[in-house]
Amino acid sequence: MSKDYVVGVDIGGQTAKIGIVNKKGDILARKVISTKFEDANEFITLLGKTIREMAQDAGIAMDDINGVGVGAPDGNYYTGDIVEATNLMWAKGKTVHFANELSKMLGGQPVTITNDANAAAIGEMKYGAAKKMKNFIEITLGTGVGSGIVVDGKLVYGHDGFAGELGHTCAIKNGRACGCGQKGCLEAYCSATGVARTAKEMLEKSDRPSLLREYKDITSKDVFDAAEKGDEMAKEIFEYTGKVMGEKFADFIPFSAPEAIILFGGLTHAKDYFMEYLVDAMNENVVFLWKGKVKVLVSALNESDAAILGASALAW
Amino acid sequence: MSKDYVVGVDIGGQTAKIGIVNKKGDILARKVISTKFEDANEFITLLGKTIREMAQDAGIAMDDINGVGVGAPDGNYYTGDIVEATNLMWAKGKTVHFANELSKMLGGQPVTITNDANAAAIGEMKYGAAKKMKNFIEITLGTGVGSGIVVDGKLVYGHDGFAGELGHTCAIKNGRACGCGQKGCLEAYCSATGVARTAKEMLEKSDRPSLLREYKDITSKDVFDAAEKGDEMAKEIFEYTGKVMGEKFADFIPFSAPEAIILFGGLTHAKDYFMEYLVDAMNENVVFLWKGKVKVLVSALNESDAAILGASALAW
Repeated sequence: MSKDYVVGVDIGGQTAKIGIVNKKGDILARKVISTKFEDANEFITLLGKTIREMAQDAGIAMDDINGVGVGAPDGNYYTGDIVEATNLMWAKGKTVHFANELSKMLGGQPVTITNDANAAAIGEMKYGAAKKMKNFIEITLGTGVGSGIVVDGKLVYGHDGFAGELGHTCAIKNGRACGCGQKGCLEAYCSATGVARTAKEMLEKSDRPSLLREYKDITSKDVFDAAEKGDEMAKEIFEYTGKVMGEKFADFIPFSAPEAIILFGGLTHAKDYFMEYLVDAMNENVVFLWKGKVKVLVSALNESDAAILGASALAW
Repeated sequence: MSKDYVVGVDIGGQTAKIGIVNKKGDILARKVISTKFEDANEFITLLGKTIREMAQDAGIAMDDINGVGVGAPDGNYYTGDIVEATNLMWAKGKTVHFANELSKMLGGQPVTITNDANAAAIGEMKYGAAKKMKNFIEITLGTGVGSGIVVDGKLVYGHDGFAGELGHTCAIKNGRACGCGQKGCLEAYCSATGVARTAKEMLEKSDRPSLLREYKDITSKDVFDAAEKGDEMAKEIFEYTGKVMGEKFADFIPFSAPEAIILFGGLTHAKDYFMEYLVDAMNENVVFLWKGKVKVLVSALNESDAAILGASALAW
């Protein structure tokens, strides 16, 4: 009995992406389910059922699966728990014994979990822009801002398994309230929701004309679309986002001296509107040792694949 | 021929401390020399000569020495160079091929170098407060502010060997000019010189009476002495120093999730005046995952021994 397959699960604020992966890294089957449940058990039950069905449909016996790797916000590698994940309704303000529960649902199948950004970093290292790198930082720009830090070829988990929460370092002192309860977090500015907040603030501050005034509940996608149409305010929103990111990245570099910082996630589609400002602000603010020396790259991976593959790599 | 000894050298802005160390970690001979030279070669020549003399006096043949480990500001583990060390006259604005030159001076003896804070962290892990820790951050509070970061039991050197320069992350946006060329660095506030600068600023800002008005060129030692005599302004200076440190430490924790942050160096003598403020500010500003969970300790090592032992550990 050879265990030739693993399952990779990428859990986000809206959906979970599930893949069955072979040893070469081919995704043989994939499925997307909603994560918008109030109750953790409901979601875990659906996830377990979906994995069983996918295996059956692909003609793979559960016994041939080596394990399940999960990337989830606030997922803890050491304990297998998801802890107070602000972007998941069913894990807000509580601890969910996720790996344990999912394992039970799958007849004792081993389940390994880490935060979604760590999973992306592993995917990047195995299949993406960090293939030959031993020191880099993966920054995920999605609903929130996450990070996976690789030092000397290994993920940094820290004493308690929660290392790599750079989205909750302080970008603007006494700045915007963040979902985590602190003020001025990087996530409050440079996530998709952060970009939308910047848009709302800029619109309120002046009467300048902008295509964005036509939208009711502005999203970062709306800002991107407006920028594509040449809207000046939309461009300034990304300029500001880039500057805030660059200034903060300047603070990350002296910690682990990465070869590169790699950006991952939806917001990278707008890279042409923020990258220049990001790199300039980073080099202006970083101590001389690293001025002009740290690359800022955009992930070389297909977004959904990276997260699935990264998560699945945990299960080998 | 068994190589039973190593040499540890701790290079600081004022002096270098040299020790010959056996396998048990006993310092068999020690000597202090000045580092105040204009020319790097002059210093390296004196250091080489001193090591030879110390070995001779201790009855140890140079052939019985396994190597020399050096902790120095801006020392690079990968290249053996000291690069633009602002606190060393002979390495300011230039690259000194230190390990290479010292090795030549010692007849080809292997020389390994790292920054002084990394050496202290290694000492702390082998002999001090971090003996059982696999994840901690050592912060050195001396003429400058340095750091040695240990992740999963290993020093973080990063892509280029310079990782762990937390003294040059930004504590106060657009704040004081730092020797490195940036503004608002942690070092500009929480080093011995930073404390003296805070004192001067506070004295200038008001006419409040203070014992510190009696000093001409205030040092951090003067501030400590005044605090010991009950001087209110001196106490406030340390309170401010503690707050700035704590706020910035809150930003370090999400990176590597350390079990503890360990303070090392001269300024720790004043811990009773700043520790409470430091811990409060840290816990107030860190994201919920780590509130009240990260210990702040003072090094358990005799200051000069730690650095010598840490540096010497590099040479085994």
